[in-house]
Amino acid sequence: MIYADNAATTKISDSVLEKMLPFLQEQYGNPSSQYSFGIKAKRAIEQARQQVAEAIGAEPSEIVFTSGGSESNSWVLSSVSNGHVITSSIEHKSVLNTCHLLERKGIDVTYLPVDSKGRVSLDSIKEAIRPDTKLVSIMLANNEIGTIQPIAEIGEYLRRRNILFHTDAVQAVGHIPVNVKELGVDFLTASSHKFYGAKGTGILYKRNGVSLPPMIFGGGQEHKARAGTENVAGIVAAGYAIIESVTEMTTMAEKLSALVRATINGIRAEIPNIIINGDENNRLPGIINIVFDGVTGESLMHLLDLKGICVSTSSACTSGRDEPSHVLMALGLTEQQAKSAIRISYGRYNNIDEVETIVTNICYAYNKILAAKS
Amino acid sequence: MIYADNAATTKISDSVLEKMLPFLQEQYGNPSSQYSFGIKAKRAIEQARQQVAEAIGAEPSEIVFTSGGSESNSWVLSSVSNGHVITSSIEHKSVLNTCHLLERKGIDVTYLPVDSKGRVSLDSIKEAIRPDTKLVSIMLANNEIGTIQPIAEIGEYLRRRNILFHTDAVQAVGHIPVNVKELGVDFLTASSHKFYGAKGTGILYKRNGVSLPPMIFGGGQEHKARAGTENVAGIVAAGYAIIESVTEMTTMAEKLSALVRATINGIRAEIPNIIINGDENNRLPGIINIVFDGVTGESLMHLLDLKGICVSTSSACTSGRDEPSHVLMALGLTEQQAKSAIRISYGRYNNIDEVETIVTNICYAYNKILAAKS
Repeated sequence: MIYADNAATTKISDSVLEKMLPFLQEQYGNPSSQYSFGIKAKRAIEQARQQVAEAIGAEPSEIVFTSGGSESNSWVLSSVSNGHVITSSIEHKSVLNTCHLLERKGIDVTYLPVDSKGRVSLDSIKEAIRPDTKLVSIMLANNEIGTIQPIAEIGEYLRRRNILFHTDAVQAVGHIPVNVKELGVDFLTASSHKFYGAKGTGILYKRNGVSLPPMIFGGGQEHKARAGTENVAGIVAAGYAIIESVTEMTTMAEKLSALVRATINGIRAEIPNIIINGDENNRLPGIINIVFDGVTGESLMHLLDLKGICVSTSSACTSGRDEPSHVLMALGLTEQQAKSAIRISYGRYNNIDEVETIVTNICYAYNKILAAKS
Repeated sequence: MIYADNAATTKISDSVLEKMLPFLQEQYGNPSSQYSFGIKAKRAIEQARQQVAEAIGAEPSEIVFTSGGSESNSWVLSSVSNGHVITSSIEHKSVLNTCHLLERKGIDVTYLPVDSKGRVSLDSIKEAIRPDTKLVSIMLANNEIGTIQPIAEIGEYLRRRNILFHTDAVQAVGHIPVNVKELGVDFLTASSHKFYGAKGTGILYKRNGVSLPPMIFGGGQEHKARAGTENVAGIVAAGYAIIESVTEMTTMAEKLSALVRATINGIRAEIPNIIINGDENNRLPGIINIVFDGVTGESLMHLLDLKGICVSTSSACTSGRDEPSHVLMALGLTEQQAKSAIRISYGRYNNIDEVETIVTNICYAYNKILAAKS
């Protein structure tokens, strides 16, 4: 199998799994228990909190562990109780669908357009701001096309106006430099399984001094913000995984960029009329989104699946639906173009041999589909 | 180490861990991905859903996986938007604290008293019901004293009146027979790490036909009720763990009851004036809560900890606070008595030799504390 869908989820790092396993096995104490066995589990959580804080330039007291990115996003967005919210039209469904809930509650939401590369402009935010704007939520990097947004620029502007700023950094953390202070955000979402940790653990950065009503009520876990017995093993994994990813970030970005270039060049040599979506200059190193004229992304994906190659047509969280990707539509693509795209997302375990196999099989599958149609 | 705090959390079953591990390692596909590798993960979740459904007499479509018992409880309780709610005064903090939130939103909550054994009476529910009562939430078995409530009786009464009924069955599922139809509940909460599964996976049973607004917005995971990439490994563990626990339930209950009897008899022979809290006839097989005259539970707990014995003073979720247990206070104990209690909770991996060590050490610690005071 060749796994080239690392934006959907990643394989856990072996060394991270090794650090995590004891907390699934012999170190099973409840972190809220007051005897040594429980305190050990508690300490492991606090170490992970410190690791995460260090990786994104935050204080440990600003890190809350959740069950995932969708929970973190839902939590922040659903906390708005009145006024106006600004977001973009290419956010993850966990942001957009929570915004739809806000609208049903009578809160106004502005969905900013993006340019053809998927960039939100600071100017459009300036224009959208109203006296009652409570929160702006713009993702750091898009999950389908990899476009990176000018978050630091937006953050600086909003900070001077005292408007809360959230960024969904699920695709960015562990892959490109992320520093909450430099970004000027009040809230930031991350997800461990996107950087070689385990599924089931998310992160919410909440700037000290900013208030947010609890997500889950109960015991006083997670600074009394998110109750429930902690997923200790998952949290431990998140701490080690983020440190590992941040450490290798620079070399990994070079490697992934090379794999992406080889993929584009390889496919283009055979199929010259492909369109690459996103922003060449501001893009995550491992994600490419390609439109193939005359075939559907779905049929390509299924033919590649038969060869043991995993790529996706859109984000995993919106795949399996018959609608074209809301992200690609926002770029100005036609519905047909949007349905002709596939996303390839490389990660730590991919190599150039796999790229060659992918290129060969994509070209083969593309020609096969076209031939069957004619 | 002797672990006798199984009501706080349990050690994962070796065979369950074995079933779970592949989904942390090589089977890491995102269940929402449309290629075979993702579909395999999806199938594993659906198998777990079937296992859980079978174990509690539900349909698979009625099972939603959450991040834990506190999330399930918070979710159901916080869904009430007006009217009146009835609960008991000895519920878990995740129920009580969500009820406090409801009160701040203007919803009336009745906290029913319990008798000296910790039982809620059907009569008290009948008296508390108002025309605008929307939800009744009574736990199936208490986490501190083990008392089992007459849920089936209450369920039958409420069903005829069309009032929604939720039971927090976190301590019960996997330990005593639980059948949602026999109980007559609309919602039921369970937690995998309480029956030898992993921390980080909870269960919410939601009867088909009953509506509940989503907990987390985003992709369409978990019947569109709870978005976010699933904790596949944790969910797989929950499925196998519940089947294993239900299979061994009868023999385990006999074993645990014998350990509890031996503990009570052993301590009573040395310290005759202990008080056993809870209901001798309606109690979980493995939990005992004992008041020791003249010493604090905390000091006993710490002395036992020095000997490598884990017992608790109250529930893990409320321990570490200086307040007496709200459960013990509701039984009518004095504050001093409530602070003099410890909870011992046995599980699958305890044996009679450990009980003897526990009894010896409790008596030793008790006498040592008394001697130091005089």
